Amino acid sequence: MIKPDIHDILDGHKPLGGVNVGRVMDVLIVASAVAIALETMPQLPDHLRRFLLGFELFLLAVFAIEYLIRLATANRPLRYAFSFWGIIDLLSIAPAIALMTPQWMVVRTFRLLRLVRLLKLFRGSHAMERLVVAFQQVRGELMVFGVIAALMLYVSAVGIYIFEHDAQPEVFTSIPDSLWWAVASFTTVGYGDMFPITPGGKIFTTFVLFIGLGVIAVPSAIVTAALLESETNIQRRIREAAENGGDRDDETSESAQTIKGE
Amino acid sequence: MIKPDIHDILDGHKPLGGVNVGRVMDVLIVASAVAIALETMPQLPDHLRRFLLGFELFLLAVFAIEYLIRLATANRPLRYAFSFWGIIDLLSIAPAIALMTPQWMVVRTFRLLRLVRLLKLFRGSHAMERLVVAFQQVRGELMVFGVIAALMLYVSAVGIYIFEHDAQPEVFTSIPDSLWWAVASFTTVGYGDMFPITPGGKIFTTFVLFIGLGVIAVPSAIVTAALLESETNIQRRIREAAENGGDRDDETSESAQTIKGE
Amino acid sequence: MIKPDIHDILDGHKPLGGVNVGRVMDVLIVASAVAIALETMPQLPDHLRRFLLGFELFLLAVFAIEYLIRLATANRPLRYAFSFWGIIDLLSIAPAIALMTPQWMVVRTFRLLRLVRLLKLFRGSHAMERLVVAFQQVRGELMVFGVIAALMLYVSAVGIYIFEHDAQPEVFTSIPDSLWWAVASFTTVGYGDMFPITPGGKIFTTFVLFIGLGVIAVPSAIVTAALLESETNIQRRIREAAENGGDRDDETSESAQTIKGE
Amino acid sequence: MIKPDIHDILDGHKPLGGVNVGRVMDVLIVASAVAIALETMPQLPDHLRRFLLGFELFLLAVFAIEYLIRLATANRPLRYAFSFWGIIDLLSIAPAIALMTPQWMVVRTFRLLRLVRLLKLFRGSHAMERLVVAFQQVRGELMVFGVIAALMLYVSAVGIYIFEHDAQPEVFTSIPDSLWWAVASFTTVGYGDMFPITPGGKIFTTFVLFIGLGVIAVPSAIVTAALLESETNIQRRIREAAENGGDRDDETSESAQTIKGE
Repeated sequence: MIKPDIHDILDGHKPLGGVNVGRVMDVLIVASAVAIALETMPQLPDHLRRFLLGFELFLLAVFAIEYLIRLATANRPLRYAFSFWGIIDLLSIAPAIALMTPQWMVVRTFRLLRLVRLLKLFRGSHAMERLVVAFQQVRGELMVFGVIAALMLYVSAVGIYIFEHDAQPEVFTSIPDSLWWAVASFTTVGYGDMFPITPGGKIFTTFVLFIGLGVIAVPSAIVTAALLESETNIQRRIREAAENGGDRDDETSESAQTIKGE
Repeated sequence: MIKPDIHDILDGHKPLGGVNVGRVMDVLIVASAVAIALETMPQLPDHLRRFLLGFELFLLAVFAIEYLIRLATANRPLRYAFSFWGIIDLLSIAPAIALMTPQWMVVRTFRLLRLVRLLKLFRGSHAMERLVVAFQQVRGELMVFGVIAALMLYVSAVGIYIFEHDAQPEVFTSIPDSLWWAVASFTTVGYGDMFPITPGGKIFTTFVLFIGLGVIAVPSAIVTAALLESETNIQRRIREAAENGGDRDDETSESAQTIKGE
Repeated sequence: MIKPDIHDILDGHKPLGGVNVGRVMDVLIVASAVAIALETMPQLPDHLRRFLLGFELFLLAVFAIEYLIRLATANRPLRYAFSFWGIIDLLSIAPAIALMTPQWMVVRTFRLLRLVRLLKLFRGSHAMERLVVAFQQVRGELMVFGVIAALMLYVSAVGIYIFEHDAQPEVFTSIPDSLWWAVASFTTVGYGDMFPITPGGKIFTTFVLFIGLGVIAVPSAIVTAALLESETNIQRRIREAAENGGDRDDETSESAQTIKGE
Repeated sequence: MIKPDIHDILDGHKPLGGVNVGRVMDVLIVASAVAIALETMPQLPDHLRRFLLGFELFLLAVFAIEYLIRLATANRPLRYAFSFWGIIDLLSIAPAIALMTPQWMVVRTFRLLRLVRLLKLFRGSHAMERLVVAFQQVRGELMVFGVIAALMLYVSAVGIYIFEHDAQPEVFTSIPDSLWWAVASFTTVGYGDMFPITPGGKIFTTFVLFIGLGVIAVPSAIVTAALLESETNIQRRIREAAENGGDRDDETSESAQTIKGE
């Protein structure tokens, strides 16, 4: 078995003995994510906790073996070891250390980086491509929106601090604290932990929220417009090709052909 | 009276003695739904409760008779009995058992499946067709969105658990519990039962919510784009037909006709 | 002065001595709305309360005089008295009775119907027309959406009642009570007075909310699509006219002209 | 060095000794905003508080020097002093007074007006231009929406006051207080400080919220439509130019050229 074959098997492009190894790895990644979530539950019975520990050891073994195979079969092992996916693969087995010292929660979550791999499932998907193209086209607009949103958040936080600090010094303690109110309000989440109680604060919030609604509507509008344009562009190109080749024959099409041929 | 006629009457395609039986059945289904809701109210006076019980018995009788008629007049009774609507019709009279043992709440709600039938009202409606076509066109995009949303929910839940578990061990007990926070926050519902209190958790939430706003804007954008495209396609086809047959006459239209005729 | 002139003056189409009487009446209507709001404030000082009472008497006098003038100058007084605006005009002076018995809050609010008149300001505005046309075009889709939303609300309320009633009998008392939770959740308002606490209820809510997001995105999509189509139709007609008259001259335009001329 | 050169340096159009002075001023403005926010935190250690005071004095010196340079090098100093940016520049050094009397929070925030300058960063950006053009095109529609939204808020506040005032006199105290509920509900923020508890109030809220959803969807739809139209117009013009110059040659293009040339 040659080296590229082994990579194709691990990446799921080629089955091994009828089993899609890449897909099996994906299932293990998802199962690993579920296990991480479950083992944080305090009311978990002891036998399930022991089973999850065993499952984690099994996953570590599998991911360690995968890493070693990839390293051994890579054309340039060092280059793989320092590549993006090589580092992710290494980090995904790093939590072995965390098993000994359970406080290292953060280290354990490195394995979550493996979830990024699930995005690979969409490689080659037309739908994913269209979304990515649409987002790339509107990067500029989204950045402008981001800066305007940041300015609005800051100005709102300062405003509400001026209006509410004296009435609720425990709630609107400082401007950074008021920023949290601004975030919860502009995203319309409204947890209810902070809200204005003075007439001035309420009137200020009303104006700020209605302007905010307009601003919040913008990214949605931008993405919709981008999605439509990307599709319209594709359709127009198809139609133009059809029109040039089909409808306008006799003399006009010849000149069109000439222009294209040049 | 021949068998298909009876089905047409029950489905509301044909009136019986001036009465649209299908529409009457629809009204009874809605009335049944209202009755189910009302009888859960603890403060209900006794005489109304007795009336609702009588109404339920009446509905069961009507639906049982409808089922028997449909079974008797079906061309192939067994095939009807095991068809989708045959099973729904049977389930809708199953709550008869629940009347004897009032604990079987779940069984009683089988009748709610009858509500699905209300969707039949829109069969043949242009508006419903357009919505269905639009949704089918974007199935792929919506699935990609669903997976991205699921990944975001999981990553957010793990992140907030890391930031808030130590500060609020009673609130952010475990990652599955934190998932509930992620759901309430991303949908911007924000019940207020769980929210971050540490600076780290608040900054994390800010970033996560603003990315979430972009993601939440996507399904809206996808549906809008699909609705527009479906309509635009229809209009373009009409216009193209008009252009081919109308504007471009003399020589060009002939070639267009030839292409279409082939 | 002839009768139609008086109506034109009252409707604001003609100034009287340099003053636009119709616009003055609009200002009085808005001032009346502000006064109604202010006089409900319990902490209001007595002299302001007396002023508001005086202002209300003044408004009643003005509106009563307006009503009498309109009645006297109408071509067919009885027809005006029973017309839509005639009844509104009468109701707007009905709160005179409420002044004697302050409990009749509801009667007093009849005057609010006068606010409807503010919509008249937009008569003839291009922007308003476009909005109305867009809404009329999508009446069908919006009705379908309304019925689907109602079904979803009901099914969600029944579901959450089944999951949460045993755990929180005081909160999710009955299905009608659960409907209130469904409304607050689907609109993403999330007051925080009712929320699921059982794992089953939370998982159910998650699914229901994400489907809900898709449904909530639909009316927005429908309105956007309608607005765009209305504008696109106008632009296309302009372009087609330009194309027919401008670009395609020699032979083709003649045939197009012929078609239009027929 | 001539006067216009100094202005170009301060505005960031020309570097001074390899340093973009305008960009440095922008960074100082942002740093000043961060400092304002930080110094409101009560738990701030004393040495950091002293550092922030020093930083503020430094900023005041820098901005004062900038103001004097701009005043000295302006072609008509008085005209600059009373221009929009001249007043902003003066206000941004006004907080010097506030340093002596720390209560004058409001005066201190005048410096925030400097944040408006950050918008200058986007001058010449295609994305910003498109957003501005889109918003200008739909000013009319957005104003109509604003008035309709204001009417809806008022009518909802009056309605909920009538339904809830008797049940919760402490919460829905007056109509202005109920307006705050209307704002929090229509924007779907839902802080949870005010919500209806009577059946009538809940049913009223349900209707009002669902109509509100439709209204809230409108500004989003308007902005999306405007963004798309602005782009479509640009694309159409490009396409038309291409069509006239490219595809339709022989005779037709000549006539098109003639029309354009006239």
